[in-house]
Amino acid sequence: MLYLVGLGLADEKDITVRGLEVVKSASRVYLEAYTSILLVDKEKLEAFYGRPVIVADRELVESGSDDILEGAKDVDVAFLVVGDPFGATTHTDLVLRARELGISTKSIPNASIMSAIGCTGLQLYNFGQTVSMVFFTENWKPSSYYDRVKENVTLGLHTLVLLDIKVKEQSLENMARGRKIYEPPRYMTVAQCASQMLETEEERQEGVYGPDSLAIGAARVGAPDQKLVAGTLKELAEVDMGEPLHSLVLLGKRAHDLEKDYIQQFAVNEETFNASWKQGYGSS
Amino acid sequence: MLYLVGLGLADEKDITVRGLEVVKSASRVYLEAYTSILLVDKEKLEAFYGRPVIVADRELVESGSDDILEGAKDVDVAFLVVGDPFGATTHTDLVLRARELGISTKSIPNASIMSAIGCTGLQLYNFGQTVSMVFFTENWKPSSYYDRVKENVTLGLHTLVLLDIKVKEQSLENMARGRKIYEPPRYMTVAQCASQMLETEEERQEGVYGPDSLAIGAARVGAPDQKLVAGTLKELAEVDMGEPLHSLVLLGKRAHDLEKDYIQQFAVNEETFNASWKQGYGSS
Repeated sequence: MLYLVGLGLADEKDITVRGLEVVKSASRVYLEAYTSILLVDKEKLEAFYGRPVIVADRELVESGSDDILEGAKDVDVAFLVVGDPFGATTHTDLVLRARELGISTKSIPNASIMSAIGCTGLQLYNFGQTVSMVFFTENWKPSSYYDRVKENVTLGLHTLVLLDIKVKEQSLENMARGRKIYEPPRYMTVAQCASQMLETEEERQEGVYGPDSLAIGAARVGAPDQKLVAGTLKELAEVDMGEPLHSLVLLGKRAHDLEKDYIQQFAVNEETFNASWKQGYGSS
Repeated sequence: MLYLVGLGLADEKDITVRGLEVVKSASRVYLEAYTSILLVDKEKLEAFYGRPVIVADRELVESGSDDILEGAKDVDVAFLVVGDPFGATTHTDLVLRARELGISTKSIPNASIMSAIGCTGLQLYNFGQTVSMVFFTENWKPSSYYDRVKENVTLGLHTLVLLDIKVKEQSLENMARGRKIYEPPRYMTVAQCASQMLETEEERQEGVYGPDSLAIGAARVGAPDQKLVAGTLKELAEVDMGEPLHSLVLLGKRAHDLEKDYIQQFAVNEETFNASWKQGYGSS
């Protein structure tokens, strides 16, 4: 059996009791470690589980999935995924491959950022599509996300923006030379995201949002030091939310007063928050 | 401290390790038992936790929240919520009330149907707004959900439909007479939902979807006997998915081939599934 086990969002204790049972009894345990991260390292997990964990990087999952699945017809293999196994990153490929090989699969759900973002006090019913923001480079500033945000904004819905992480990436030079030397990991911050969003708006000029649009920055959701900040995009572009992982929610105009009551406690500046709110949010 | 603890979706072992620690050490433990249910009863939870659990019905949470919060400045109170504390039903009211009383709050995330629905193989990125379906009566068939579905359909997005549950409800007669006699619990099925959707379409006639539109029925997500069924709304209106809880996803036209590869294994009838798919789903 292949078990896909969600680990939740923050640390080793966010696994479910059922998930922990699977991890303890499986023959091999893999940790998917390239689309998201926990706030603790592999050693902490191994100590908590009382057993070794094999780190599965993108290469292993995408090209070496048969190694992961080896023998899983007869023994249990656990594949650990930060968040939920079918959340922000789905592992349907691995499941489909398992099925081709006649291996049964089972998934153990857990918190995903896609629903845990409800901790902002915003109603999940009022969210439209989720989008991803990648690190812009000098020559590559993809703005396809902007079209999706526009669709949400037109309907007055909130948009969850998931932020890029770069783990075990090679520089172009090292890749070209076939050198397996990896860059240090990078995690996009709320400030970087807000300023990239403003950059896109300036380029596209479709008035989807602007410097005074309200948004919420969320850092380390689910962790003891979880941090939420509400403010204008201009303000968030300057905010320091500390350690990763970060996410951002662009507020939709349909936001209602109960949501406001909750989020205003996180305001960077209550005056600008209220001024922006009055400009066009809330029940009308 | 007030702890809001997510219990996940299926049974007593879906609580996280951290959540279980909170439950074991809190002074009082409440179970919110009117917006959703686990697939096990209170006694099973009490046996697993090794301590008593107080059932919190709507009346207690909405009018008696100060009883729940009593003393929580000095001792820990755990408020258990099926799914995630800020998922399909948010408990921001209780948190706001706690804050007014100067009580700190902390929330322990867990799987919510809002993200666990990813187990269908549909990408959460491709979902629009989530809607709720209530039980129609002879004279009350609210169709405001249909407008939201229309917005999603127009954009080609999937729609998660959460189905009504009626727990501890009084009949109109008993309510009028002030008799605290409650009706047996009722849980909407996928078949009821699909047929109500078709009823609304027949009444509204806006062509948002029809009998041949594809949808997925999901039952007991996250439980060992989780069941997924893909088919047309006409087919799903006849399907028997067994015990509660059920949910439904109306497929959006933007669905791509990788999603199809995954969901077609759940098809009631592969022929009608493929015929409907060819009518207008998938990358074009």
